[in-house]
Amino acid sequence: MTDADDLAARVREGDLRLYELEEHADADTAAAARRLLLAEETGADLSTVGEYAFDADVAESNVENMIGAAQIPMGVVGPLPVDGSAADGEYQLPLATTEGALIASVNRGVSAIREAGGATVRVLKTEMTRAPVFSVEDVGEASEVATWVREHTDELAEAAEGTTNHGELRDVTPYVVGDNVYLRFGYDTKDAMGMNMATIATEAACELVESETPASLVALSGNLCTDKKPAAVNAIEGRGRTVAADVFLPHELVEETFGTTADAIAEANTRKNLVGSAKAGSLGFNAHAANVVAAAFLATGQDAAQVVEGSNAITTAESREDGLYASVSLASLEVGTVGGGTSLPTQSEALDVLGVGGGGDPAGSNADALAEVIAAAALAGELSLLGALASRHLASAHAELGR
Amino acid sequence: MTDADDLAARVREGDLRLYELEEHADADTAAAARRLLLAEETGADLSTVGEYAFDADVAESNVENMIGAAQIPMGVVGPLPVDGSAADGEYQLPLATTEGALIASVNRGVSAIREAGGATVRVLKTEMTRAPVFSVEDVGEASEVATWVREHTDELAEAAEGTTNHGELRDVTPYVVGDNVYLRFGYDTKDAMGMNMATIATEAACELVESETPASLVALSGNLCTDKKPAAVNAIEGRGRTVAADVFLPHELVEETFGTTADAIAEANTRKNLVGSAKAGSLGFNAHAANVVAAAFLATGQDAAQVVEGSNAITTAESREDGLYASVSLASLEVGTVGGGTSLPTQSEALDVLGVGGGGDPAGSNADALAEVIAAAALAGELSLLGALASRHLASAHAELGR
Amino acid sequence: MTDADDLAARVREGDLRLYELEEHADADTAAAARRLLLAEETGADLSTVGEYAFDADVAESNVENMIGAAQIPMGVVGPLPVDGSAADGEYQLPLATTEGALIASVNRGVSAIREAGGATVRVLKTEMTRAPVFSVEDVGEASEVATWVREHTDELAEAAEGTTNHGELRDVTPYVVGDNVYLRFGYDTKDAMGMNMATIATEAACELVESETPASLVALSGNLCTDKKPAAVNAIEGRGRTVAADVFLPHELVEETFGTTADAIAEANTRKNLVGSAKAGSLGFNAHAANVVAAAFLATGQDAAQVVEGSNAITTAESREDGLYASVSLASLEVGTVGGGTSLPTQSEALDVLGVGGGGDPAGSNADALAEVIAAAALAGELSLLGALASRHLASAHAELGR
Amino acid sequence: MTDADDLAARVREGDLRLYELEEHADADTAAAARRLLLAEETGADLSTVGEYAFDADVAESNVENMIGAAQIPMGVVGPLPVDGSAADGEYQLPLATTEGALIASVNRGVSAIREAGGATVRVLKTEMTRAPVFSVEDVGEASEVATWVREHTDELAEAAEGTTNHGELRDVTPYVVGDNVYLRFGYDTKDAMGMNMATIATEAACELVESETPASLVALSGNLCTDKKPAAVNAIEGRGRTVAADVFLPHELVEETFGTTADAIAEANTRKNLVGSAKAGSLGFNAHAANVVAAAFLATGQDAAQVVEGSNAITTAESREDGLYASVSLASLEVGTVGGGTSLPTQSEALDVLGVGGGGDPAGSNADALAEVIAAAALAGELSLLGALASRHLASAHAELGR
Repeated sequence: MTDADDLAARVREGDLRLYELEEHADADTAAAARRLLLAEETGADLSTVGEYAFDADVAESNVENMIGAAQIPMGVVGPLPVDGSAADGEYQLPLATTEGALIASVNRGVSAIREAGGATVRVLKTEMTRAPVFSVEDVGEASEVATWVREHTDELAEAAEGTTNHGELRDVTPYVVGDNVYLRFGYDTKDAMGMNMATIATEAACELVESETPASLVALSGNLCTDKKPAAVNAIEGRGRTVAADVFLPHELVEETFGTTADAIAEANTRKNLVGSAKAGSLGFNAHAANVVAAAFLATGQDAAQVVEGSNAITTAESREDGLYASVSLASLEVGTVGGGTSLPTQSEALDVLGVGGGGDPAGSNADALAEVIAAAALAGELSLLGALASRHLASAHAELGR
Repeated sequence: MTDADDLAARVREGDLRLYELEEHADADTAAAARRLLLAEETGADLSTVGEYAFDADVAESNVENMIGAAQIPMGVVGPLPVDGSAADGEYQLPLATTEGALIASVNRGVSAIREAGGATVRVLKTEMTRAPVFSVEDVGEASEVATWVREHTDELAEAAEGTTNHGELRDVTPYVVGDNVYLRFGYDTKDAMGMNMATIATEAACELVESETPASLVALSGNLCTDKKPAAVNAIEGRGRTVAADVFLPHELVEETFGTTADAIAEANTRKNLVGSAKAGSLGFNAHAANVVAAAFLATGQDAAQVVEGSNAITTAESREDGLYASVSLASLEVGTVGGGTSLPTQSEALDVLGVGGGGDPAGSNADALAEVIAAAALAGELSLLGALASRHLASAHAELGR
Repeated sequence: MTDADDLAARVREGDLRLYELEEHADADTAAAARRLLLAEETGADLSTVGEYAFDADVAESNVENMIGAAQIPMGVVGPLPVDGSAADGEYQLPLATTEGALIASVNRGVSAIREAGGATVRVLKTEMTRAPVFSVEDVGEASEVATWVREHTDELAEAAEGTTNHGELRDVTPYVVGDNVYLRFGYDTKDAMGMNMATIATEAACELVESETPASLVALSGNLCTDKKPAAVNAIEGRGRTVAADVFLPHELVEETFGTTADAIAEANTRKNLVGSAKAGSLGFNAHAANVVAAAFLATGQDAAQVVEGSNAITTAESREDGLYASVSLASLEVGTVGGGTSLPTQSEALDVLGVGGGGDPAGSNADALAEVIAAAALAGELSLLGALASRHLASAHAELGR
Repeated sequence: MTDADDLAARVREGDLRLYELEEHADADTAAAARRLLLAEETGADLSTVGEYAFDADVAESNVENMIGAAQIPMGVVGPLPVDGSAADGEYQLPLATTEGALIASVNRGVSAIREAGGATVRVLKTEMTRAPVFSVEDVGEASEVATWVREHTDELAEAAEGTTNHGELRDVTPYVVGDNVYLRFGYDTKDAMGMNMATIATEAACELVESETPASLVALSGNLCTDKKPAAVNAIEGRGRTVAADVFLPHELVEETFGTTADAIAEANTRKNLVGSAKAGSLGFNAHAANVVAAAFLATGQDAAQVVEGSNAITTAESREDGLYASVSLASLEVGTVGGGTSLPTQSEALDVLGVGGGGDPAGSNADALAEVIAAAALAGELSLLGALASRHLASAHAELGR
C-alpha cells in the first residue's frame, strides 16, 4: 500500500479532510491521494494531470488541494525586434494557448514588424493600485478625510513602504461617493506584478488613516483599484504597466505580408476597432489583444485573471502616403518577473527564453521589458488579424488551421 | 545525432524555417528541435517545457511552432452541490491557478454553500455571437439593408446553418452607424463554445447579404460580437451562456464560516461591488469572479482570452431577517465541452472529473452544466472574499498562504 | 390691495402654503403672489421672470409653484434640406441657446450641407422604453418569470395597450440579475415622446406579471429603461428615435466653407471623436451633438433632461477621393410633437416653423420628421466644429462671438 | 413701412442675408424681420416667440440669427436648508421645466430634508478641463512629450494663465494612445463655468507645447475633456464641481412624507439605481438627478448641453436602525454665476433669488454655493422619486399632475 493509498483511505474513513493531506505527507503524495479519491468518486482517469514537472512542495505557494497540473501547449513567436525603454533587441516570445492558428497569425505580424525594422515600444506609466473603501459619518466627514489624505501622503507612504523592501507609494487619490471614501493607492512595485505587495502596504496605510481620521475601513479593496474587472478607471488612468507599441510598414510590405492594402487595413480598423467598439459600449478598441496577452501570461506565469485588464487596449491604423502606421496602446498590462507563478519551472524557463527572469537591473526593468515585448507581440497580432479580415481570410484560416 | 539535432542543424543552416519543422518530422521531434535552437540562442534551459504529457501531433490543432507546454498547478474545490437546469448533484471542480490562497478561499465558500444545501443555478440564455461589419453607400442604403435583414432571417439561417451540423441561428440584430451596418448573429452552438462555428456560419450568411443587398463586407468581425474585449453589449445582452447562481445562508452559518455577519458582508458588497464599481466606470460589479472563471477555464480547456467576457458579472448580497442572500450573475460565460482545448489530455481529464466531457445529451447540456458549476464556484469565491474583506482578513490570508 | 398682495399676505400669516395658491386664485395671480413673497424674502427683483407670454392656467400641467418663465434666446438655422424617411424638403430649425457662436457655427454647417444638395437622414428604430424591476425568490424563479414573459407577450401587449389610444407594445426583453428581474418594455408611442404613456401602459402590464407569476414589483422603473442617465443600453439598443444623417461634401466645398481639407477633418474626427472618446471611456463619440440636441429641445418643448440620451451619438468622417463623407448617428433621440412642453406657445410656434406641430399623418411621422431635422442639424454642427478645430479656430471664434 | 418690413424686403430681394440683419438695424428690429420672413415662409405665427423680455442687443453674445425667445415655465422649490462649504442657510431654488409633477415631487423631498434639519453638502473638487490632442511621430516621441509636459507644468501654467484674470491651472495630465498625445488641462475657473476660459488658456499653453516639443496640435479639444458627452473620465475624475449631498431621515419622517419605509426605499435604490444601472452599462446610478440639474440649469443660465455631465451621479440609500441615510454625489456639475447665460434677465433674477448672482467673495464661492444648492435639490428629487416608486405612486402621480 503506497502512502497515497494510505492517505486516501484515511480520507475515506473520515479521519482526514481533503485539504489536510499536506500536513501528513509530502505534497506529491497528497496530490496522488487526491487523484485516487477523485478517480474513485468520478470515474475520471487523472493520469495526465498527475504528470507534472514541478516540485509540488514549491507549488504550495501557488495552489491548494493540488491534484497535478493543467498542461497548455506552448509555442513561440519571433524573432521580434523591439526598440523599447527597457527591451532592446530581438526577442523570442513563448505563448501558451489552445487556440489553433493564433501563433501562426501572430508570427505573421511579427514577420512584418521584423521586415519593417522592428517595433517602437514604451512603458509610459507604472503603477499597481489598491483602493480600500472606508465609511464615514457623512459627506462633511468624507471631505475632511479626503483633505487629510491629500495633506499626509508622506506619512501614508512611510506607513505603506514600511511593509515592503521594494515597493514605493507613488500617489494616493481620494474619491468620495456619499459616505464612502475610496483611496486609490498607486505603487511602483518594480519587477513584481505587485498586487500582494500593494495590498499589504495599503493595509498598513489604512491603519494610519483609521487612527488619524474618523474613517472606518470597510474593505481593503473597494473596486476602484480595479482588479480583475473591466473598468474605465484602468483604461483611462492605467494599472500595472501602461505601454504602447507602434510600427510603420511600407506599402509593399503590407501587400506582400498580408495580401491587402494599407487602405483596407485602416478601413477595417476604423469600422471594426473604433466605430464597432464604440457602438458596443466597449472598453477595448482592438481586434484581439487579449489573445496575445493571455497566451503570454500563461507561458510566463502571470495571473490569468488579469487578462481582463490586459484587454483594455486601443489599436490605431492609418494609411499614409508611404505605407501603414499602426499602434496598440495597452492601458493596464499587469506583469511581473518575480513572484506569483513566475518561479514555476515551465514559466521560469519561458522568462529565461526572453531573458527577463527574476529581478532586473535596475529594479523594474525586467518587468518593463516583458511588458514591452508583449505589447509588440500584441501589435503583431493586431496587424495580422486586421490583415486577415481585410482580405476576408478569417474563417478560412480557422477552417484550415483551427479546430 | 538525433532527429531533433538534425532538424535544428537544418534550421541553423537556413535550409528550413522554424515553422516548417512539422513538415519534416513528427511534432515531438519538431518541438525538441525548437527547444534546442531556443536554448542555444537564449541560454535558457527548456527541459521542463519539454516534459509535456500530450500527443504533440494531436495538439497541432491547438498550437503552432510548438516547443512544449506550460504547466499550471491544478487543485480542486468541492464537493459543490448544484441545483441547476443542467447540472444536478455534487461536483468536484478542478481549478488551475498560480494564485496562492485562491483555491482555499473558494473552497471555504463551497463549504458554506454545501452547508446551506447547495446553490441554485440557471442558464438563462445561450447565444454565441459574431457580428460582421458591412459598408454601404449612405444611411439610406443602411436603412434598406437593415430592413432586408429583418425580413430575411429565415434565408440567413438557412445559409448559416448549411455550414454546421449542430449550430442554430437564433437571431440577427442589425445596428447602423453612418455608412456601417453591423449584423449581430446569435447562435445556439450546443456543447461547443462555438466561436469558430459562428464565424464560419456567419461567413456563409454574409455571402447572402452581399449578393442580395448593396452591402459590402468589410470585416467578418465588426466588434459588436464582442469577442475578447470588455463590452457593454455582452454585459447587457449576454454572449455564450448567461448564467446566475444564488444561495441563502442562515446567520449562524455566515458567522461560523466567515467569522463575520450577514450585515457586514452585505455592506461590503454594496460599498465595494456596487458603489465602488459604479464609481470606477466598470462593467464588472463583483469581487473576483474572473479568478474562478480563469482557473476553471485553464483546467477545462476553455479559451483563456475569454476570461475577459467572463468577468462581466454582478454580485448581490442582502442581509435578511434569517440570514444572507447572495447571488452572482455572469452575463457572458463562454464555455464548451467539445472543441478548442477540451480534448487535450489534462483538460479532458478535468472535464471527466466534472462528468461533462464531450457532447451532452441533450446537445448543449454538458456545456450548460459546466457553466452552472463554474457559476456556483464563482458564487463561492464571491462569498469567501466578501467574508474575508468584511473581517479584514484579505492581506493576512495572502501573507500566510500566498506569494 | 391686489389679489396677489392679498394671497401673499395670507401666506405670510401662515394661512396658506406656497403651493396651495392655485386653489384660491387663478394661476397668474398665484404666480404674482409668489414673486412678491420671493422678492420680499430674497431681495430679488423678479419682474422679467413675470413677463411670460403663456397662459399660466394651461401651464399648470407643466409646472407647479409657478413664478413665471425662463427666457432663452431663440435663433434659427436653415434652410436645411433633408432627404428623410419622414422629413422631406427644406427646414428652418429654431434653436434656443445661451451659448454664443453656436447658431452661427451650426449654420455654417447647414450652408455646407445645402451646397452639397442636402443631408440624407433615416429614422432606423422607434421605441420608447420603460423597464420595471421585480424581485423574486431566487434565480430559479427568475428564470421561470423570464420564460413566462417571453411566452406571454401578446397578453402583456393587450394589458399595456388597454391604457392608451396610440401606443403599441413592440417587445419586452427580460434581464435577470440574481433575484431581480428587469423587463424592458418597448413601445411605439407615435408622435408623443411617450415616457408617460409607456409608464402608464407598463404599470398595467406589471399588474398582469404580478398576478400570473410570483414576481413582485419593486419599482416601475428599474433603470434599464434608461431614462435621463447615460447608459450603454440606450447607446446600443436605442431609445426614442434611433436616427442617422449623412452627407458627402466635394473637396472644393470643404475648403471654401471650412477653410480646411477633408483629410484634416477626417484626421480630427478620428483622433478626437473616435480615439479620444475611446480613451475617455465615453458613450458619446462626437464633437458636440448635445449642443444641437439641447438647443432644439428647448426651442420645441422637449424634455431638457433627455439631452443626456441625445448625446449618445457617433460621428464618422472619411476622406475619399472626391471629398468628405460625414455622418452622425444618434442612438436615442427622444422627441415628440404632442404632449410635454410642445403645446406651450413659444414651443408650439417653433414646431410650426418646422411644420411638424401636433400629431402627424400617418401617426408618428411628425416626431420622425422632427428627429430627422435635428439629426441633420447635429450633422451640420459636427461638420462645423470639426472644421473649426481642424483649422484651429475654436478659441478665436469664441473670443469673437462668445462670452 | 416699419424697419422690420423694410429689412425683410431687402432679404426677399436677395440684397441681404438672414444673418446680416444686425449690421443694418438694431437687434430687436432684426429679430422682428426674421419673424416676418419665417412666418411668411412657413405659415407659422411667431408672436409669442417675439414677446421676449430681454435686451436683444445684449443677447447678441448668446445667440445669432435671433428671432426671439423660448419661454420655459419657472417654479420654485424651498426653503431648502443647506449646510455646505459655501452655501449656508435656507434657499429658494428656481427651476424651469415643462415636466409636470417634477417641482411638486422635488418639493416633497425638500420638505423631508427641511424636517430633518437640512442637507449636508460639500464641493469636493473644482476643475474645469480642456484636453487638446496632438499628433507625434511615434510612441517614442509620445513618451518624450508626456515627460516634457510633466516636467514643465509651471511654464504651461504661466502660458495658460497669461490669458485670464481669474483662471488658475491646477494640473495637466498626459494620456498617450499610439501617436496621439492628449493633455487634460484642469483649471480653477472661480465663479465662471469656465469652458471658454479654459479653451483660451489651453490654446496658449498649446503654443508652448508646440514650440518646445515635436508635438503638433490636431484639435484644441480631443474629447478627453470631456465636454457634453457622457464619459467615464468625468464620472471618475470630475469636471466642473464634484459635489455630494446627504441627509439622515428618521423612520417616522420617512413614513409621514413618503408613505413608505426606509427599508423599501433602500431596496428600491439598490435594485434600481445600483444593480439596474450596473446591468444597463450606465454612468449614472441615480433615479433622475438630470431632471433637477436640467431645470436648475435652465432657470439660472447654465449651459443646457452640460446636463449630460450633470447626470453622472450616484445615489445611495441605506436603512439604519434609526432611519434612512441617503446621498447623491454629482461627479461633474458644471456651473457658473458669471458669463454664459447668467446675465440674461430672467436667469439673473433666478440667481438673485438664490443670492449667488455674479462673482462671489471669495472668488468661486458663488458657483460653489450654486452647485451645493443644486446638489441638495437633486437629493430631494432622488428621495421623492424613490419614495414614490417604493410606494408604487409614479404612474398615478403623473396621471394626476402630468401631461
